[in-house]
Amino acid sequence: MRQNKIFAAALLLLLFLGLLLQWELDWLDGQTEEVTENIPEKEQARVYYELYENIWKDLEYFPVPLSTKNPDAGIRFEDSWMFERSYGGSYGHEGTDLMPDTNVSGVYPVLSMTDGVVEKIGWLEKGGYRIGIRSVHDVYFYYAHLDSYARDFQPGDAVRAGELLGLMGDTGYGQEGTRGKFDVHLHVGIYVRTEQIPELAVNPYWFLKFLEARKLSYDY
Amino acid sequence: MRQNKIFAAALLLLLFLGLLLQWELDWLDGQTEEVTENIPEKEQARVYYELYENIWKDLEYFPVPLSTKNPDAGIRFEDSWMFERSYGGSYGHEGTDLMPDTNVSGVYPVLSMTDGVVEKIGWLEKGGYRIGIRSVHDVYFYYAHLDSYARDFQPGDAVRAGELLGLMGDTGYGQEGTRGKFDVHLHVGIYVRTEQIPELAVNPYWFLKFLEARKLSYDY
Repeated sequence: MRQNKIFAAALLLLLFLGLLLQWELDWLDGQTEEVTENIPEKEQARVYYELYENIWKDLEYFPVPLSTKNPDAGIRFEDSWMFERSYGGSYGHEGTDLMPDTNVSGVYPVLSMTDGVVEKIGWLEKGGYRIGIRSVHDVYFYYAHLDSYARDFQPGDAVRAGELLGLMGDTGYGQEGTRGKFDVHLHVGIYVRTEQIPELAVNPYWFLKFLEARKLSYDY
Repeated sequence: MRQNKIFAAALLLLLFLGLLLQWELDWLDGQTEEVTENIPEKEQARVYYELYENIWKDLEYFPVPLSTKNPDAGIRFEDSWMFERSYGGSYGHEGTDLMPDTNVSGVYPVLSMTDGVVEKIGWLEKGGYRIGIRSVHDVYFYYAHLDSYARDFQPGDAVRAGELLGLMGDTGYGQEGTRGKFDVHLHVGIYVRTEQIPELAVNPYWFLKFLEARKLSYDY
């Protein structure tokens, strides 16, 4: 009986020590996590900022050129980032709408802002006739609601900055060919990607403000 | 004796259950951490991008104006982000150096790029005579190596965008008053802050490129 008591006490002590060790390991784990969370936070921010700066590196021209024939043909846009949109459910506006002074489809040229490669082409329920260009530094530029395409673009086609992609229109918000559900405009979207986030939308407004000083001229 | 054995066994069981509970709590804790790390990744990126966009909101003028008297007085700068610097140990260059065409101290005006409030003023071993302005959207703008200040700035003083802060110089890299250790230039630093990161340096290059289209004119 006495032996049993000693045995039980020893077992208790062992369990207690095991518990202490477990707590200590947990505590240590917590410590190192705190450290690794602290240092890479700045690095994480740097990763996101480098992705953002890649956009600057690739941008060359404003997507709508000046008109040689009609000097009054202007484009207005505002910072509508995350303004509410309601077609097909309520959601935030991940882009910038370039509104021409005249609400007419098939007139205003839409140019590629960057060198790149066609990644997506064709109809989207929300975007209408859209084209998506992947730029040199891996940024996705999305041009939506086009009236028509400049040529028969195929995924993989190389595109130059300033190249005509199509004409501004009012397509979208329905099945293929739907037009006139809203005023003519060019929706510009800009997306970077990380290993974890395949499509990370960035507000195009500031880039477009910058590019206003870099407009090409076209005959239209 | 029998009672003692039962008592010991009961204690053992209790301890064991406690251990199990501890493990389970740890496991649950790990689970929720994983979840909160996964979903907010996009939100985390958005937080950093909003901080970055705050800089755009506050910027108004290029920090060195055009000269009405000498149209050739130009400013050169390149993207030297994280280029190696060696004064007082090796480190990355967290800023952009604006180099005047003429290597002369006390001539080129340095203007505030933003509205804001003076946060730091006076000598820094590396920065020489520097001034730090906190802008409306909580961005810290750091102007270093000044030859002299425009007036007796005090922390808390309000500053307007385009206001003269001082004259460009070559101060720094030593005790107060040290000059001429490098060519005359203006070092511009831009820092945002988060709850976790009190000073998060952002590359000023792209902002300065944008501001080149927004230069004021001064008589110098």
